[in-house]
Amino acid sequence: MSVVKTGVKYVYRFDEGNAGMVNLLGGKGANLAEMKSLGLPVPNGFIISTEACRAYMKEGVGLLDQLWPKIVEHMHYLEHVSGKTFGGEENPLLVSVRSGAPVSMPGMMDTILNLGLNDRTVLALTENTRDPRFAHDCYRRFIQMFANVVLGIDLDHFEKVLSEHKKQLNIKFDHQIPEENLAKIISRFKEIVKSESGEPFPQDPWAQLKMAIEAVFRSWNNKRAVTYRKIANIPDDLGTAVTVMEMVFGNLGSDCGTGVLFSRNPSTGDKELFGEFLINAQGEDVVAGIRTPQPIGALKEVSPHIYEELKIVAETLERHFKDMQDIEFTVERGKLYILQTRNGKRTAKAAVRIASEMVKEGIIDARTAVTRVTPKEIEQLLHRQVDPSADLSSIAEGIAASPGAATGKVVFDVDEAEERGKRGEPVILVRPETTPEDIHGLSRAAGLLTSRGGQTSHAALVARSLGIPCVVGCEAVNIDLIGERFTVGEFTVKKDDVITIDGTSGKVYPGEVPLIEPSMHEEYLHHFLDMADMFARLQVWANCDTPEEARQARKLGAKGVGLCRTEHMFRESDRLSIMQQVIVAEKVEDRMDALEKLARLQKDDFVEIFQVMQGLPIIVRLLDPPLNEFLPKGKDVAKKLAQLRSEGRGESPEAQRLEILLKRIEGLQEGNPMLGFRGCRIGVLYPEIYEAQAKAIAQAACELIKRGVDVKVKIMVPLVATGQEMCMLRANIEKAVAEIAESYGENWRCKIGTMIELPRAAIVADEIAEYADFFSFGTNDLTQTTLGVSRDDAEGKFLAAYVRLGIYTEDPFRTLDRKGVGALMKMAVEKGRSAKKDLELGICGEHGGDPSSIAFCDRIGLDYVSCSAMRIPVARLSAAHSSLGLLN
Amino acid sequence: MSVVKTGVKYVYRFDEGNAGMVNLLGGKGANLAEMKSLGLPVPNGFIISTEACRAYMKEGVGLLDQLWPKIVEHMHYLEHVSGKTFGGEENPLLVSVRSGAPVSMPGMMDTILNLGLNDRTVLALTENTRDPRFAHDCYRRFIQMFANVVLGIDLDHFEKVLSEHKKQLNIKFDHQIPEENLAKIISRFKEIVKSESGEPFPQDPWAQLKMAIEAVFRSWNNKRAVTYRKIANIPDDLGTAVTVMEMVFGNLGSDCGTGVLFSRNPSTGDKELFGEFLINAQGEDVVAGIRTPQPIGALKEVSPHIYEELKIVAETLERHFKDMQDIEFTVERGKLYILQTRNGKRTAKAAVRIASEMVKEGIIDARTAVTRVTPKEIEQLLHRQVDPSADLSSIAEGIAASPGAATGKVVFDVDEAEERGKRGEPVILVRPETTPEDIHGLSRAAGLLTSRGGQTSHAALVARSLGIPCVVGCEAVNIDLIGERFTVGEFTVKKDDVITIDGTSGKVYPGEVPLIEPSMHEEYLHHFLDMADMFARLQVWANCDTPEEARQARKLGAKGVGLCRTEHMFRESDRLSIMQQVIVAEKVEDRMDALEKLARLQKDDFVEIFQVMQGLPIIVRLLDPPLNEFLPKGKDVAKKLAQLRSEGRGESPEAQRLEILLKRIEGLQEGNPMLGFRGCRIGVLYPEIYEAQAKAIAQAACELIKRGVDVKVKIMVPLVATGQEMCMLRANIEKAVAEIAESYGENWRCKIGTMIELPRAAIVADEIAEYADFFSFGTNDLTQTTLGVSRDDAEGKFLAAYVRLGIYTEDPFRTLDRKGVGALMKMAVEKGRSAKKDLELGICGEHGGDPSSIAFCDRIGLDYVSCSAMRIPVARLSAAHSSLGLLN
Repeated sequence: MSVVKTGVKYVYRFDEGNAGMVNLLGGKGANLAEMKSLGLPVPNGFIISTEACRAYMKEGVGLLDQLWPKIVEHMHYLEHVSGKTFGGEENPLLVSVRSGAPVSMPGMMDTILNLGLNDRTVLALTENTRDPRFAHDCYRRFIQMFANVVLGIDLDHFEKVLSEHKKQLNIKFDHQIPEENLAKIISRFKEIVKSESGEPFPQDPWAQLKMAIEAVFRSWNNKRAVTYRKIANIPDDLGTAVTVMEMVFGNLGSDCGTGVLFSRNPSTGDKELFGEFLINAQGEDVVAGIRTPQPIGALKEVSPHIYEELKIVAETLERHFKDMQDIEFTVERGKLYILQTRNGKRTAKAAVRIASEMVKEGIIDARTAVTRVTPKEIEQLLHRQVDPSADLSSIAEGIAASPGAATGKVVFDVDEAEERGKRGEPVILVRPETTPEDIHGLSRAAGLLTSRGGQTSHAALVARSLGIPCVVGCEAVNIDLIGERFTVGEFTVKKDDVITIDGTSGKVYPGEVPLIEPSMHEEYLHHFLDMADMFARLQVWANCDTPEEARQARKLGAKGVGLCRTEHMFRESDRLSIMQQVIVAEKVEDRMDALEKLARLQKDDFVEIFQVMQGLPIIVRLLDPPLNEFLPKGKDVAKKLAQLRSEGRGESPEAQRLEILLKRIEGLQEGNPMLGFRGCRIGVLYPEIYEAQAKAIAQAACELIKRGVDVKVKIMVPLVATGQEMCMLRANIEKAVAEIAESYGENWRCKIGTMIELPRAAIVADEIAEYADFFSFGTNDLTQTTLGVSRDDAEGKFLAAYVRLGIYTEDPFRTLDRKGVGALMKMAVEKGRSAKKDLELGICGEHGGDPSSIAFCDRIGLDYVSCSAMRIPVARLSAAHSSLGLLN
Repeated sequence: MSVVKTGVKYVYRFDEGNAGMVNLLGGKGANLAEMKSLGLPVPNGFIISTEACRAYMKEGVGLLDQLWPKIVEHMHYLEHVSGKTFGGEENPLLVSVRSGAPVSMPGMMDTILNLGLNDRTVLALTENTRDPRFAHDCYRRFIQMFANVVLGIDLDHFEKVLSEHKKQLNIKFDHQIPEENLAKIISRFKEIVKSESGEPFPQDPWAQLKMAIEAVFRSWNNKRAVTYRKIANIPDDLGTAVTVMEMVFGNLGSDCGTGVLFSRNPSTGDKELFGEFLINAQGEDVVAGIRTPQPIGALKEVSPHIYEELKIVAETLERHFKDMQDIEFTVERGKLYILQTRNGKRTAKAAVRIASEMVKEGIIDARTAVTRVTPKEIEQLLHRQVDPSADLSSIAEGIAASPGAATGKVVFDVDEAEERGKRGEPVILVRPETTPEDIHGLSRAAGLLTSRGGQTSHAALVARSLGIPCVVGCEAVNIDLIGERFTVGEFTVKKDDVITIDGTSGKVYPGEVPLIEPSMHEEYLHHFLDMADMFARLQVWANCDTPEEARQARKLGAKGVGLCRTEHMFRESDRLSIMQQVIVAEKVEDRMDALEKLARLQKDDFVEIFQVMQGLPIIVRLLDPPLNEFLPKGKDVAKKLAQLRSEGRGESPEAQRLEILLKRIEGLQEGNPMLGFRGCRIGVLYPEIYEAQAKAIAQAACELIKRGVDVKVKIMVPLVATGQEMCMLRANIEKAVAEIAESYGENWRCKIGTMIELPRAAIVADEIAEYADFFSFGTNDLTQTTLGVSRDDAEGKFLAAYVRLGIYTEDPFRTLDRKGVGALMKMAVEKGRSAKKDLELGICGEHGGDPSSIAFCDRIGLDYVSCSAMRIPVARLSAAHSSLGLLN
């Protein structure tokens, strides 16, 4: 039974297809067809559809027999338009046969060039090109490629022959082999084909064609391709198309050439042709690296006509495909041919600029532009990275643990890394894993590579906190610490060899590779993010403790400050001693005295940061950490005290002061400070502390209001778990604020809200909402209490294992645990809004800067996310992508 | 307008009422009427209803005028049945006028005795009693009482006169005043009445009666009564009834007497008449304490007839009122009169016995019996307590902080308390509050009294943990530490004065008071609790770690062991070093070796406890605490190591061992161990530990099964927060159990479940339930994480203040926080059962022994509560009371 369906078209001329037919013609074929229909100078050719491939997979070679008349017909068409003859002894037609799947599977399937050559046509080629060496080399390469791809003969057989000749001739490169040797080699190659396949090398071009097409069909199911599809989640039944195209040659003289072209600069996004070309060369010459290509700009002088034509082609393709294009071209005897076009890879920096400018140029609309850059790419803008336009092959891939790329000499010893790092030498520390004792070496390395561990391994955590690029869990790397070397498969890297690691992609490269320095590219970034904001529902605020941070946050587009911690205001050296008086005071009056001093200093801090944030909301959180954090270590105080006593000054006022201090420190000692006497519990037991803070805030606000500044400050109470706490504290704060406002003759009042950072707070959110104008989810603590996991304790112990074992699908401190913590947040949102319809909702935990977590916050209806200033760009784009349904 | 409603009856003869008319006739009146209707010898009388009182409150004195004819009519009836005349000069009728509200308000309202006496009837009384002193003393007391209660004249005026006479006569007691002085005193009393009220003492008995009735009505709204009702939450519009009853006298000769009687022993519950009597005496004589009453048993010889009659009366009343009765009686010239009956107060011990026996006697049904004892009373059985049948007045009342009663000399100095306590002297330490530095004295005191602090103050916590009776926050007590004395109002207690404190009620008594020793009264308790079990839906299980505890738990009626911790099995000295090897092991094999040794020892532990619990379920929890708990302190190890080094043995094997140990201890150090590397996290990272435990359990079970023992063991995994953990660990445990069972040729398998002790576990309970056969709520940890409160840290710091301020309505570690923790439990129950219909549910936190928490567990549908063995009786009764709707 024939599977060739009646009336179904299996073979398409380029001028019969278009870019929309990608499923039928494959990506490469469809784009060639589209270019043809645009009137661009594409060589002639035709495409055997994916449907034919699918039929072949059912039918086997019989299918080809049934199709053959159609293929022959199309070959005749090619002969007709080219004026050449397939297998012709005068003007032979040569073709390339390439695979092209609907989905890009780079390097997974096969290509055959120069098909049509045989012992006779090679002579005609010699005649026509007047270059016998070129013709024979083409033939030699064709036999080799055909033998390998179509007949499955190991390339080693051919390499061995080539090596022998080179050794004999005492030369290094294939292209140095003279013509006379090539003839001998061709002879040997044909013998190899015969002995390995049992059949002579097919001299009939039609037979070559049929076998090649079948080989491409078969390649869909080769092991590499099947594995790749499995990983990339591509369906197995798509099939590949086969493109048969007339060969054009860029190496037939000085009016020939070949090149690669980006329609814009893929590193910077500049609107200029970018790429390189070689006169009188084929693509392989570029890859072989024998001659150095010239930058595309040089073509302007070499061949202004071709350059202009390329500019038009690039612009046409860009407008047509609505994206920056990566174009391959060949010039054969002064005639330009476009061999391929596709959307070009680019750096994050370029992506942002290109998206922005294409909107201005009317090529794409803002919505499309916003989808063209991922939050991850925005994140890359902050780090040095491997040039994505470079054609590199990595030797191994691990887990991308700390973003950025680093190049340096490999070092295996931690102490050595420290020593050489100190001297300013960039070293890459390579270890099976790291421990806390290794910190001295880690902190001096330019980059870290470990063969074990995950996202939350010690190495990963330290690297992230130090901002050092890091790849972990790179299991392919076998480390021999004693031999000071590591191997990846056959590849060996010894101490002092240079490698590059990319902590953004997880890849490891041998040697140096082109890196791109981080750059914020401000103008384009701002324009791009402003576009993104148009699509975002969620606002992005920032966590800022100082005026400097606030200034940066505004610059990066924060729409408010979601968390301004006041702790640092107590820690500065001139204040710490006053804060200690507050804590040590045994009488309320003494505490009030010290607090008053502190409040005066705090007021000035507030004036400055409120001024920076004028016109935008700023949420000030009242004192949160355990009081012990403001006191010296008990051990140290005890030591000092012992010394005073040994000096006979045990009764001195200083000794007495230390005694009281020590007693207080001991009284405040806690077994689990995370769950202890902190947050609003301090405000409940020492109302005067929160009162003093509220007054300082109100004073700062009123002073600025008097000066005409638009102050939008709100006060936030931490660690609330009951409605009663919020009720009491709100009353105290309101009273303090009103008192100050009246003293300034102002009617100023401010919104008062709370963190939701304990499970109970989420559960009784309706009760709390009665006394709160806003909620801000403190997801760091909420994660710790909901999961019963202290982040600091877990990180060194079980967190990494839990992520590796899939108990946590992701590190819950980086990406919100939606099922647990998220469920509580959802509950709090619903209950809170049920009690107060216009309750303002936000998040100020670290998750506020994480794309997936931002999408969740968007989905449950928060009003804003607040993150560290540096993450604002990522958050803004995430908010937009969430609205556009691009983030899950 | 008259408020006397037409056709409404306001005045009732005793024989017109019954016990059901308590709202109309007041408690006292209704019971008198009931007794009358039973044919018991009650003096004649009538009752003016509460409805009349309510009308009086609207109408004022006019109401009395309208009622007057009815009252006169009833007085004539009294004259008729008594053969006496009201105001008669030969045989005068004397009456008592008493208040009686529908709700008991002891001592809050007024009583007037001997009403009807005047200058003439006193002579007739003299004649009839042939006791002029008695008659005049009656008159003197009547004037005094009437002047005070009806006319509102201060008693001081009268006391002054009495004092003058006693001084002059050089006597001490009122009853020693001779008749002639009494006549003078009466005269002076009448003058006082005239000068203070402006009117002469009313000689007209009818006028006396009207004024007395009005005074009783008015007393409903006196300050004391209003305040009492406010505190006791009694409505203000109930009104009081007025009982007018013929006076009977127990002091007219040796054939007279008076007494108080309990139908059963109120201390022990023994079925015997209990009480005391005085021949030829009135009630006041008993109170004055001049003569010592005889025990009721003596009456059997003095007057067997009356004794028999009393026995019948007591039995009749008991059967009638279906409860133990507290009866007042008087014998006037050989005739018995019952003056009052009410349900008698009793000790917890007696309450249990009486309830049990009354069921056996057919007086009440089991359901009624079970309602007669509260869980709080059962709790009292465990502690020494103040005899509730004693008539005591306390000088102050604070917060009952640690149950039990203690008598001792007051001491104000902590060191002194320690010193004298050590010598065995019972001292009561009295302090404004206590601090951790006071522990040495606290622990030696017989009892603690503080003027400040609450349920969770330092004193309260320490006292409870030491089992010392304690009253805290007794604000009425003003302590003068320097003067070593305290005052309560006018009352002063100096150092070395004896006081008694009752940590069960919070009361403070001067001097010694009768105490009852704790006793479990086993036979009756078991019978009683077995009855209770009939009504309980919830089962009561016990938390037991050792065979001894398990034995006790069974004895106390546990239906299973809900929590058998395995930690102690690792802590015993011979095992600790092996456990340390397990922890320190760097290789899995080394760990397995040590574990195997441990498992062999554990197996024997399991055999013993499983045997004790045969036939009943026992849940064994796998290792839970952080590993550091099994290691020595880092400080100590470092010290030893330093010593070895100083001795030049720094390279010895011992030093090397210590080095490894120290490193491990430091590696395991945690900032918040509560949220750290513990529970199933250990089981996930070191699967071999849980595996070894599961194997030991399975071995023990199989050995016993081979011997024919019915083993119902289940394995519980602690600190689970994800379905994945449970899935992994369950698979490991199942595998280990199956392996062992097969080696014994048994097909034995056991149920595997988990603690729900983290908020996330409750939230994803449906996922966890897929891999768990049962849940046991670990409400200690669940409370800590849900509220974000570390119990140990909070207790010394803010917990007491939070309870005092009402932020927590109760200490959430004693009574479940229903809104927060309870909501999560409810969620877990619903989600768990939605995933697995027959999921077994229980609780093993401390809340499992708390009545209110037990009621909550019942309501949300748990199958059992598990508590410490000592609390099983409380829990069993609580479960029953919950089912019966008696617990909220």
